[in-house]
Amino acid sequence: MITVHHLRVGRPLFTLWLIEELGLDYSLKIYDRNDMGRAPSELKAVHPLGKSPVIEDDGHVIAESGAIAMHLIENYDANGRFAPPTEKFARASWYQWFHYTEASAFAPLLITLLLSREQEPKPQLLSMFAQSEVTLQLDYIAQSLGEQAFILGDQLTLPDFGLSYICQMASRLKQLDDHPTLRAYVERNVAEPAFVRALGKAGG
Amino acid sequence: MITVHHLRVGRPLFTLWLIEELGLDYSLKIYDRNDMGRAPSELKAVHPLGKSPVIEDDGHVIAESGAIAMHLIENYDANGRFAPPTEKFARASWYQWFHYTEASAFAPLLITLLLSREQEPKPQLLSMFAQSEVTLQLDYIAQSLGEQAFILGDQLTLPDFGLSYICQMASRLKQLDDHPTLRAYVERNVAEPAFVRALGKAGG
Repeated sequence: MITVHHLRVGRPLFTLWLIEELGLDYSLKIYDRNDMGRAPSELKAVHPLGKSPVIEDDGHVIAESGAIAMHLIENYDANGRFAPPTEKFARASWYQWFHYTEASAFAPLLITLLLSREQEPKPQLLSMFAQSEVTLQLDYIAQSLGEQAFILGDQLTLPDFGLSYICQMASRLKQLDDHPTLRAYVERNVAEPAFVRALGKAGG
Repeated sequence: MITVHHLRVGRPLFTLWLIEELGLDYSLKIYDRNDMGRAPSELKAVHPLGKSPVIEDDGHVIAESGAIAMHLIENYDANGRFAPPTEKFARASWYQWFHYTEASAFAPLLITLLLSREQEPKPQLLSMFAQSEVTLQLDYIAQSLGEQAFILGDQLTLPDFGLSYICQMASRLKQLDDHPTLRAYVERNVAEPAFVRALGKAGG
């Protein structure tokens, strides 16, 4: 039995979406952020970083969205629906997008989020960095997505879970005004029945 | 034949270390950062994000350290020296540390780096965030490493490449004063013959 330690609101919902897509049986513990927008200290009892998403599987604690996703699809995806492609370079592209959503894509948005809460005067260098990087990342995602339904084509793949989070975060930070295809991408993905189930159970 | 597009100075050196450990034949193109500390525009001709590390393998461009690492060990590590463990939970732990170095561990250090270049007055909220997060991450790494030579035991594994970069970055930002075991970890790893070869060829 898997226990999901779920922190509202943020990336954890997209891990829960994957879990719902896989149809797993799990128990859900829900945590809310404190007034500073940070995880509450109870999560530290689960994992030293006090992070979420974090899951327990047979008593083993696993943190990091990417690691949880790999663990889940390697062990609980009997039909291999979310397995990476076997062809060498299609697989490399899959890995690239999978890692991208946690690595390069995230920091500029996190800085934008923190800057939005920072008092005036806003720091100049960080503001310039965040704005130019967010523009670069979103243009890149939009160009790569093109008219496709999902980032690697017409099927939902593992990189879409993280990328949906990135685009939703960008949307909340009002960064998607010039990107109707990315807004449509988020809207399409959060309408997926498994996402709707995850949202219904976790509430955010 | 693999072409490595190498940007000095930063994470790319740790990808080059892996390539040297694998004993691959490759050609190296070296780029230097501009006055702002950013990648030069020539790298945009290689990949739209203008990123490094980025490699070309048989004409296919692959970005993201984690994706490059997976591509390399799945295709060019004949003895499986760097393959993840097969046991379910040892594998989950491997994935956790592998993803951690690009995801959770990185953003607080990046913000610390940018803050060090920011003019006074330093932004309060970002400064608090960065300092508390860096402390949390480094304490966690030090506690997990303990007296071990490498993060998962006495053998060099794939997560050590990224973790060495994180610890070296922390060291350069003068964040390792309270962590002699992490300083020793960096010193030990950068003394590995394959790292020394990488440094010799790339110069940083």
